Amino acid sequence: MSDSKEPMARFYSVIPAGGIGSRLWPLSRASAPKFLHDLTGSGQTLLQDTWERLAPLSGADRIVVVTGVAHKTAVSEQCADLIQNNLFLEPSPKDSTAAIALAAAILVRREPDVIIGSFAADHVITDNKEFTECVREAVAVAATGKIVTIGIEPTEPSVGFGYIKAGDKMDLPFAKHAREVAKFVEKPDIEKARKYVASGKYLWNAGMFIAPASLILSVLEKTEPELHSKIMILAEAWGTASQEKVFEDTWPTLKKIAVDYSVAEPAAAEGLVAVVPAKFGWHDVGDFAAIAELQSGGKRNHLAVLGDVTVLSEKSSGILVSETGRLVALIGLDDVIVVDTPDALLVTTKEHAQRVKNLVDSLKVTGHSDVL
Amino acid sequence: MSDSKEPMARFYSVIPAGGIGSRLWPLSRASAPKFLHDLTGSGQTLLQDTWERLAPLSGADRIVVVTGVAHKTAVSEQCADLIQNNLFLEPSPKDSTAAIALAAAILVRREPDVIIGSFAADHVITDNKEFTECVREAVAVAATGKIVTIGIEPTEPSVGFGYIKAGDKMDLPFAKHAREVAKFVEKPDIEKARKYVASGKYLWNAGMFIAPASLILSVLEKTEPELHSKIMILAEAWGTASQEKVFEDTWPTLKKIAVDYSVAEPAAAEGLVAVVPAKFGWHDVGDFAAIAELQSGGKRNHLAVLGDVTVLSEKSSGILVSETGRLVALIGLDDVIVVDTPDALLVTTKEHAQRVKNLVDSLKVTGHSDVL
Repeated sequence: MSDSKEPMARFYSVIPAGGIGSRLWPLSRASAPKFLHDLTGSGQTLLQDTWERLAPLSGADRIVVVTGVAHKTAVSEQCADLIQNNLFLEPSPKDSTAAIALAAAILVRREPDVIIGSFAADHVITDNKEFTECVREAVAVAATGKIVTIGIEPTEPSVGFGYIKAGDKMDLPFAKHAREVAKFVEKPDIEKARKYVASGKYLWNAGMFIAPASLILSVLEKTEPELHSKIMILAEAWGTASQEKVFEDTWPTLKKIAVDYSVAEPAAAEGLVAVVPAKFGWHDVGDFAAIAELQSGGKRNHLAVLGDVTVLSEKSSGILVSETGRLVALIGLDDVIVVDTPDALLVTTKEHAQRVKNLVDSLKVTGHSDVL
Repeated sequence: MSDSKEPMARFYSVIPAGGIGSRLWPLSRASAPKFLHDLTGSGQTLLQDTWERLAPLSGADRIVVVTGVAHKTAVSEQCADLIQNNLFLEPSPKDSTAAIALAAAILVRREPDVIIGSFAADHVITDNKEFTECVREAVAVAATGKIVTIGIEPTEPSVGFGYIKAGDKMDLPFAKHAREVAKFVEKPDIEKARKYVASGKYLWNAGMFIAPASLILSVLEKTEPELHSKIMILAEAWGTASQEKVFEDTWPTLKKIAVDYSVAEPAAAEGLVAVVPAKFGWHDVGDFAAIAELQSGGKRNHLAVLGDVTVLSEKSSGILVSETGRLVALIGLDDVIVVDTPDALLVTTKEHAQRVKNLVDSLKVTGHSDVL
């Protein structure tokens, strides 16, 4: 059956839109997570940027968004072309396996030979043409029965990302760049990161997976049989009269596990994973330092400004994010991060950008959940 | 006539409450200048602190406040015991000579032998008992026909203040500390400041003057005859039916000149000025760095907080001033200055605290006078 159809005709885009982005507090909140913000100054949100990248590949009618029930309205507003039938709502966050497997299980019931590509709603990609070509190649490879990831050629020895060790080149006429995946490795220390980059064999793991939905589910069935069977029950109930009841009973019991552990790594160990190396600019914009870097475009002593705000800056660099429009004056601050929101103000430096997560944790503990 | 009355019975306190305090923007504004703020965390404003220091000396009914018409209501509210007849309103700011000479000229018409003491509304003094004793001694010396200043014994070679070079000790049984003033010197560079302090002969000029009002006016008559004669015309009209008309005509034409130049320095050259050295803690709190110093009480790595605000601070020192009550999170900032007001936010460091004035100047130029 699969062979008779063009691979791209089988393709469905899946956008898991979850994760608050704690390191981007106080901009990113439970009620307005990272993907609902314009962090690039593009004039649209990261979710909308993601949508625009995927619509030409799968068609807008073949994009699924998996998100929390709380974001139903915001997502529907931001993605005007999203078919309501393609909006999969999670009653509570259950990590990436649940989100992707649910999408796979629902879609495979619609089209048994469907190939899904999962792309986070809150990453930044700066070259859509190159992205499109990589996804097309990945889909073609996926059609041969592989889980295909897109690996970003590293531009620096980052310790903020996991890496993919690429193996031999695959011998496919329609996929000139694809390689086997030897293994996935966790975020390294700087020494290891330098070695990885110097070797030329390691790529950044951008968390993009393209695979036949049936293959993802069959791997999951082996690695997490209980989770798999619950997902299948949920998918079966999807769109039926019993949906609400089944979700109410089953969803809260789902195991929280990242798809890297439940599917990608075990599949790689069995030689089932391929990688398409990519040169496009990519970032997970995990903290304000990353946004500042993106905005500055590599320029030093640059002050990036996000928001409609009057800034008086003297001898200052870093980033200002304003949601209030109040006048902001900065004097003599290097690599500063200022985030000005109606009920909370953050001031820190790029060096300490990662510590924002700890701060959010302490806000939870100290009873300030009203600003989270 | 003078000899028959106790010197303290002749004493009137004068509080010139002018000056916006540009270096304290955005807290201090044209509409809410420095003296109307609580910058010490005492629970009352600098003006109220000044009032409380002076009331026991002159009596509350013998305190004059000279301020801009715009501050009439705020000053009256903050100084509940201020007699309306002792509130002298300036139609526009004309520097310290106009303010003090007007007070002197009005009061000398009420009491020809009045001794006035002029004390800025926006300085901080930390030992009221020592202050009281110094003023009493200064009043006693003033009664002998001197302009008496109070000179603060320097605790460091500050370049932020002018200095007074003390001369010989005066041979007065009722004034054990008073000395002649050799001269006033401008704010020095750090080298000079070190020499001044090492010599033991120099005191900080805190801008406090105690003198018979008639003596101040007679010095002014010689140094600035036109300004003197206009002030006399204004004082004559004060409280009469023609007051409004005379002020409207004359006030705008007054020369702007600091009382240091028009009275203190020329009088010192003629041997008419004495100084009472003082050990009390004094500061003009000219910028946020000074407030941070005051608040920290010399402790290092201390974050001072002014305002009713929740602060989450990690590895941060300096000062946070909040007028909004928004939650503020600070991470990894040394000697930072954050001033959070409803329509403007300032972030800088103690090192750059003086530059706030330049910023305010540029706000004027760029048409942002709405936040000044």
